[in-house]
Amino acid sequence: MFNLGNFLTLCTLGESHGPAYGGIITNFPAGVSADLEMVQHQLDRRKPGQSNIVTQRKESDKVQFLSGIFDGQTTGTPIGFIIENHNQKSGDYEHLAHSYRPSHADFTYDRKFGIRDHRGGGKSSARETVNWVVAGSLARQILPAEVTIEAYVSSVGDIFCEKPYQDLDLSKTDESDVRCPDPVTAEKMISRIKEIKKEGNTIGGTITCVIRNMPAGIGEPVFGKLQAELAKAMLNINAAKGFEYGSGFCGARMTGKEHNDLFNEDFSTKTNLSGGIQGGISNGMDIYFRVAFKPVATLLRNQQSVDRHGNTVTVEGRGRHDACVLPRAVPIVENLAAFVLADLYLINKLRKI
Amino acid sequence: MFNLGNFLTLCTLGESHGPAYGGIITNFPAGVSADLEMVQHQLDRRKPGQSNIVTQRKESDKVQFLSGIFDGQTTGTPIGFIIENHNQKSGDYEHLAHSYRPSHADFTYDRKFGIRDHRGGGKSSARETVNWVVAGSLARQILPAEVTIEAYVSSVGDIFCEKPYQDLDLSKTDESDVRCPDPVTAEKMISRIKEIKKEGNTIGGTITCVIRNMPAGIGEPVFGKLQAELAKAMLNINAAKGFEYGSGFCGARMTGKEHNDLFNEDFSTKTNLSGGIQGGISNGMDIYFRVAFKPVATLLRNQQSVDRHGNTVTVEGRGRHDACVLPRAVPIVENLAAFVLADLYLINKLRKI
Amino acid sequence: MFNLGNFLTLCTLGESHGPAYGGIITNFPAGVSADLEMVQHQLDRRKPGQSNIVTQRKESDKVQFLSGIFDGQTTGTPIGFIIENHNQKSGDYEHLAHSYRPSHADFTYDRKFGIRDHRGGGKSSARETVNWVVAGSLARQILPAEVTIEAYVSSVGDIFCEKPYQDLDLSKTDESDVRCPDPVTAEKMISRIKEIKKEGNTIGGTITCVIRNMPAGIGEPVFGKLQAELAKAMLNINAAKGFEYGSGFCGARMTGKEHNDLFNEDFSTKTNLSGGIQGGISNGMDIYFRVAFKPVATLLRNQQSVDRHGNTVTVEGRGRHDACVLPRAVPIVENLAAFVLADLYLINKLRKI
Amino acid sequence: MFNLGNFLTLCTLGESHGPAYGGIITNFPAGVSADLEMVQHQLDRRKPGQSNIVTQRKESDKVQFLSGIFDGQTTGTPIGFIIENHNQKSGDYEHLAHSYRPSHADFTYDRKFGIRDHRGGGKSSARETVNWVVAGSLARQILPAEVTIEAYVSSVGDIFCEKPYQDLDLSKTDESDVRCPDPVTAEKMISRIKEIKKEGNTIGGTITCVIRNMPAGIGEPVFGKLQAELAKAMLNINAAKGFEYGSGFCGARMTGKEHNDLFNEDFSTKTNLSGGIQGGISNGMDIYFRVAFKPVATLLRNQQSVDRHGNTVTVEGRGRHDACVLPRAVPIVENLAAFVLADLYLINKLRKI
Repeated sequence: MFNLGNFLTLCTLGESHGPAYGGIITNFPAGVSADLEMVQHQLDRRKPGQSNIVTQRKESDKVQFLSGIFDGQTTGTPIGFIIENHNQKSGDYEHLAHSYRPSHADFTYDRKFGIRDHRGGGKSSARETVNWVVAGSLARQILPAEVTIEAYVSSVGDIFCEKPYQDLDLSKTDESDVRCPDPVTAEKMISRIKEIKKEGNTIGGTITCVIRNMPAGIGEPVFGKLQAELAKAMLNINAAKGFEYGSGFCGARMTGKEHNDLFNEDFSTKTNLSGGIQGGISNGMDIYFRVAFKPVATLLRNQQSVDRHGNTVTVEGRGRHDACVLPRAVPIVENLAAFVLADLYLINKLRKI
Repeated sequence: MFNLGNFLTLCTLGESHGPAYGGIITNFPAGVSADLEMVQHQLDRRKPGQSNIVTQRKESDKVQFLSGIFDGQTTGTPIGFIIENHNQKSGDYEHLAHSYRPSHADFTYDRKFGIRDHRGGGKSSARETVNWVVAGSLARQILPAEVTIEAYVSSVGDIFCEKPYQDLDLSKTDESDVRCPDPVTAEKMISRIKEIKKEGNTIGGTITCVIRNMPAGIGEPVFGKLQAELAKAMLNINAAKGFEYGSGFCGARMTGKEHNDLFNEDFSTKTNLSGGIQGGISNGMDIYFRVAFKPVATLLRNQQSVDRHGNTVTVEGRGRHDACVLPRAVPIVENLAAFVLADLYLINKLRKI
Repeated sequence: MFNLGNFLTLCTLGESHGPAYGGIITNFPAGVSADLEMVQHQLDRRKPGQSNIVTQRKESDKVQFLSGIFDGQTTGTPIGFIIENHNQKSGDYEHLAHSYRPSHADFTYDRKFGIRDHRGGGKSSARETVNWVVAGSLARQILPAEVTIEAYVSSVGDIFCEKPYQDLDLSKTDESDVRCPDPVTAEKMISRIKEIKKEGNTIGGTITCVIRNMPAGIGEPVFGKLQAELAKAMLNINAAKGFEYGSGFCGARMTGKEHNDLFNEDFSTKTNLSGGIQGGISNGMDIYFRVAFKPVATLLRNQQSVDRHGNTVTVEGRGRHDACVLPRAVPIVENLAAFVLADLYLINKLRKI
Repeated sequence: MFNLGNFLTLCTLGESHGPAYGGIITNFPAGVSADLEMVQHQLDRRKPGQSNIVTQRKESDKVQFLSGIFDGQTTGTPIGFIIENHNQKSGDYEHLAHSYRPSHADFTYDRKFGIRDHRGGGKSSARETVNWVVAGSLARQILPAEVTIEAYVSSVGDIFCEKPYQDLDLSKTDESDVRCPDPVTAEKMISRIKEIKKEGNTIGGTITCVIRNMPAGIGEPVFGKLQAELAKAMLNINAAKGFEYGSGFCGARMTGKEHNDLFNEDFSTKTNLSGGIQGGISNGMDIYFRVAFKPVATLLRNQQSVDRHGNTVTVEGRGRHDACVLPRAVPIVENLAAFVLADLYLINKLRKI
């Protein structure tokens, strides 16, 4: 209960200022030659300090595998891993021990559990996503080699990448610090983030993810429709506020005549407003979806708030935080999608006898 | 696996043209005086033929309980129910036995399972939602009496209800055939749907759902954040294309300074861009979210398509279908939300010892 | 949660005196030509009134499938079924509404749920096993055709079938009313049951189950070892008190030198004290296990007991009950084993990539 | 899937010769003042080298908690822990890399996964049970303080502790190296084990477990009957061959008149052949059960066997192994039972509203 995945599952441990993060992946098939450098590469794409527009915190984020891989191959038994925490400055958070930061999880954790680890948000910290990147980047290795999963920053605040994904070269995403593959838009986004950062403020945005060459048949109606599983995973990411796939919210403004994707004789469709999914099952066309992220709640400026007794306090803005999480969220979205797809891909193998 | 819910679960049966729909609700607590008239009332809100803007199909949709309720009280054992199908005209669908309708699940079911019940879409039919309405309207009875769950049609095509939900009287939603509580907007929506219907076309829209008086503490990070569980449920509804909560996609355009919800001394917040959820857990403020629905794929006009061999065929437009599913989707959204909330509400009782 | 099975799951509904039993089987693969006569045959093997040593209650036990089977083939969507209850004489049980029958579940259900359906034991009735027989006999059709699952009555009270299963012709089991394939022992058992019945008493016994030709590799360490999954299923049967496999409790008296099964060059083993399972995984040898059943608690003689207020009452012995459930439990054991094996058989297909 | 527990769950990692064992406990309630010394004490009861009748391997088995406990209290978030492996002499096992040891899991793992970690049995090693002891001894702290869970060695080979558990002082169990609370029987058992050890042989036995003061109402029919959940857990222990509760296999020889437990006016029963469980639910009487263990398969003498190509090989008897695992299995049985009970105890809190 409350693991990621249905058959292939990830169960996680770790808190912002505990000794380590980690996880256990269950039901990973045996015989996969695990590319652990790829796993570390994905972790490196997520880690802080990669460029001057993200947080300068230092987190080395080295993953160590504890079980389930032998002589470079998965053994079919649970894959355990940990990522040790270093450079935790718990002292940084003592001033927050009794305060509730606005739009953070401080108040809700306290109400729910009656206790909270206030250091860096404890379990509510977005650092939890290191676990997901490890698991997702391993899970990606279960999928057919031709499947590609590519996410990019499609907007920052009011700056949108206007080109459709088909007109972008997604292999260039990592070339810009903001992970937008359109160089002109990327420049504007970077300037905007720098401005915002100077103000001690933060800014939101959207990430678009495109999955190509996924075979038809993936997804489990009901209640495991492909879009529902993707939405669930994405809305577990800290700061995610919305999810749409295919035509999404725009589709709600259209008529059926405009929206229906007519078939070609090879079963591909002339348009793809369906976003590669019909009836909750992939149809072989590109799967694409978009995730909205709110601006990070931690500001580098003082905010009025309350403590756990309802007394007014000032929450000081200090520490090393992202002015915009979008660039670092790109590998999270990709690898989380990979995990969801790998889970449903395995399950689909049991659908026909 | 692939049930609705985590602890409180719903497992369903039924196909469009089989003898019956039905379901089993597991882990429903004992001792609830079940209001079965309310269940039937919710089913009636969903059924076809309620007004002249929805399909004129006749489905009586009477629920029969088979177990788990004794002398009017739930017994704590599985609640089984069925809704018999009547008036199935399988013959209506014979012309579709080998055709793939555009933007339906015909092709994907065939690819996935190698076999499909073509009559009315079989398992992919939206008639499956009768089960969800039964289960959700029972589950609603687990929640504290003061919790209200109210959905309404907030847009049809390009016609939007511009007022925020706070300015609407949601008790008036059912007074208009289109289930929009703002009479002026409702009129426009109805006219638009009639136009569209006349053309044999269909149209999409959005539903907004507002949950009031939910206690703080509901939702399970990670991976059972309240918004993620709601999103998963909503995106399992046929035709749903997107989900956003609180500030949603608009929040992605904002800065942290604008977006943070500052606390009052009673722990309520001055604004509620968070949508009543912080860190995946309810904070006691209104929970609100919006679901996008694409236009129905079944048109009352001929469409070009292919059969399972890739030959071009004409899919004829005939039968009794909705030009706009939004009004009938309102009780589906509400009762599905009720099920999700009841599940997480029960689980939360075990969080503190 | 609390379904039967892990991937292939059965969720059930029904109570002794409700309108129907039934269930939903999820994740059954598509494309199985379902032999529904075999399902009915297995139900008939379980039903009362088959011979003069079992209860003479009349239960027709006709299964009706509601979904998941189309044109004789499974469609991969949930298989729903019901078995209507007939001939329920609720009045028979009014005298028990407030009494707790000794060694029944009356007291514990009341303590647990605060409410109970006293008519025939409600959910605690062994009639629930009709659902398991339906699901198990369908699941058996997923297994390779050469797999055989054969159970028989190996003891009644102190009368034991002394021959090892290898020396019995298990195809003859149904030829005797008591379902013991050794005619001499069967005669003794039948005489013993008739004696016991005349006294208004009941008697226990054991069932041995033998599974042949199961491929190696089935079972999921940890925590889904084949023997553990079988034990869990068997100990959910009403009246089951113990489970052992292979050498079982006798093995606990042996030394390693005596107990180890040495390999032949074809990987079969010279002995099979392991019972076809090593490390929780089938090894290709015969799987065999034994289940102990206590005597039925319902006697046809008066017993002293208490009501829900602790007052002394007399529980009258009347009604139509089995003096020995063992013969009717044989198909329950077989079909339950089939369900467990089919579930693990499917899962094993995902173990290697 | 394949975790231990239903709501309270344990997911584990680790292999005999990997860097560490560990696990993640999910849904542990917040606010438990965790007695971590008790956890370490239970681990110490399980570890090798405690006396001269068990293996002299040195395993320090120190548990380190990585998350879920803050300032000595559980936080309600996942509890992660690891136990580092030391003193692994992988070289000890090189001679076994291609051999299949008789009655081990070598052959079945190879067939199932196509790959195996041959060092010390990899995942199939009984060292996995360190994880269960950690999780179980924490879970025990959820149960009401008055609940006691006491296991002891009730037989070794043909030497049985003839006294019923009621006549034994179970607080004395740990005073004997063999963990049998009857000093005379304990002496005989120890002598027998020493003899067996001298021969390079091994021997089986049984463990009896007694749970007192468990409230009525625990256990979930169907399919989570208390006895079924206990049986499943116990039969996941390496070398376990059978499980019985209450009258067990003896009950199968009795008549209903002998077997029924008549009620006293306080709802206790005059006898307790039910073993504290009726209809799958605890009734407030002592719960007791017995587990059979086969003799360990690893002998300190040479055995004929085959390699993975079917060639005859000699498996040499060497290393440091237990001649009788029973004494060290006592804390495994107790703590595993504690986990099962805590899981069902929590779930039962949601049964009545």
